Amino acid sequence: MIEYKSDTNLSIMKKYSYFNGKIVALKNIKISPYDIGLLRGYGVFDVMRTQNSKPFLLAEHWQRLKNSAKDLGLNVPIAKERYKKIVERLLKLNGFKKSIVRTVVTGGYSDNGFSYQPGKETFIILMEKFIPLPKEIYARGAGVITQKFSRYRPQAKITNYVEAIRNQSRKKAAGALEIVYIENGKILEASTSNIFMVKDGAVITPKDEILIGITRNLVIKLAKKNKLKCEERNISEKELFSADEVFLTATTKNIVPVVKIDNKKIGNGRVGPVTKSLINQLEKFVKNY
Amino acid sequence: MIEYKSDTNLSIMKKYSYFNGKIVALKNIKISPYDIGLLRGYGVFDVMRTQNSKPFLLAEHWQRLKNSAKDLGLNVPIAKERYKKIVERLLKLNGFKKSIVRTVVTGGYSDNGFSYQPGKETFIILMEKFIPLPKEIYARGAGVITQKFSRYRPQAKITNYVEAIRNQSRKKAAGALEIVYIENGKILEASTSNIFMVKDGAVITPKDEILIGITRNLVIKLAKKNKLKCEERNISEKELFSADEVFLTATTKNIVPVVKIDNKKIGNGRVGPVTKSLINQLEKFVKNY
Repeated sequence: MIEYKSDTNLSIMKKYSYFNGKIVALKNIKISPYDIGLLRGYGVFDVMRTQNSKPFLLAEHWQRLKNSAKDLGLNVPIAKERYKKIVERLLKLNGFKKSIVRTVVTGGYSDNGFSYQPGKETFIILMEKFIPLPKEIYARGAGVITQKFSRYRPQAKITNYVEAIRNQSRKKAAGALEIVYIENGKILEASTSNIFMVKDGAVITPKDEILIGITRNLVIKLAKKNKLKCEERNISEKELFSADEVFLTATTKNIVPVVKIDNKKIGNGRVGPVTKSLINQLEKFVKNY
Repeated sequence: MIEYKSDTNLSIMKKYSYFNGKIVALKNIKISPYDIGLLRGYGVFDVMRTQNSKPFLLAEHWQRLKNSAKDLGLNVPIAKERYKKIVERLLKLNGFKKSIVRTVVTGGYSDNGFSYQPGKETFIILMEKFIPLPKEIYARGAGVITQKFSRYRPQAKITNYVEAIRNQSRKKAAGALEIVYIENGKILEASTSNIFMVKDGAVITPKDEILIGITRNLVIKLAKKNKLKCEERNISEKELFSADEVFLTATTKNIVPVVKIDNKKIGNGRVGPVTKSLINQLEKFVKNY
């Protein structure tokens, strides 16, 4: 297991962005302090990456953004086709080899700093150079810590990561990559990933009270295609700690093996065969996208 | 009971503000989309008003802002004395007869849109002309609706009001002034107020899992001074509906009588004598501030 100097694998390079109808330089995006995304946390977002210079699983990310917004009663002010065109244009303008596309929708500017008025949404597309996690993490596995917590309306990707940020120093001190949320002894999800376990050859992942990850769904599809037994169901804390293998999935992480949880070794403390096989399947799928 | 056309009693007039070290016009405040107050909901705030052209209970509001920030591991980048001076300067510059002072602290700009780096905070003071609620509400009482919900880390005034905003249309449809949060049959607080009930002459208000309101504390003090029996304790849903009187407290509302909850009349449906007496006590206190 290796340690991480930085909290993230995202670069600080960002150039052209989209803000309320226009392509603009990042520095020209000016959010008002009366934007209820800032003042009231009324906003959702999504994070997509590129593969072979194309947006990877755009339709799925777009649908999830729409679902998140709908859950809050928030309108998404543009249509999918237009979104796709803007993203493609921004990818060209920015010219990163690999990109992260971060799309944010908030309730927008509000005179009284509270009321949401449909049609006033703030809609932003940000682009960043994508720098993957170090290769060693995939080869040697990562450690994670646990935290008692369940997200508010977890099926929506709301811009509320206070619990994750509060736990960053503890995470760093533990040399961990992620924070796994557990509520009433039930494994839910990690702060920016989904979690899977492998037991007796079966691949198991929670399905309730979580954000349904795009990579999570893809991994389930690949596992089924490869005749692995797949279970979407509750996982108890006890079960997780006695798993043969554990891994995380996320758009910016793909599949990351987990070999340690809260200082307890998982399996034999090495990346297991089912995880390795799924990493290979995912790599193949991604390369041919 | 009367109905409300607007969601708020705050005016849209705002002029001079304070932003990261400088007094600036509101329109010159530019928040980056990489501010983790926007992107990750990592921010706290407080709302104060003026009385006789002076900040009302500044020390109490400042302390609460500090407590909220501390709860999140967030630094408040200026000291109280400096804050007081800036507020007084802004009050002069804006020249409203009555003002609302809204102070916001977020984790600030973050290169990766996630990591909080102490020293990078966004610190904003906004001023608005204060327009109190219509007098009839105090004379005839308001209606409220209930919602099953408890806030995350309720002792901190975090900028997360998604549940309140989600319920605005239902609130409006009911002609209600507020949304009262109830969890497991226990009355907690309203979306932007504290709640009190009166039973057999005793004044009762929750004390756990809520934001400890500045007006709430003042009302308790005034009630005790006036020899009223005062109880800070859990209130069950059943108890609330069988109360003799119910009222809300908030900085921008003072004491608002509640005569209807979810279409059920409270007491005889009129503003009760204990509520009236406390409104008078508070008015007296405020006038002499």
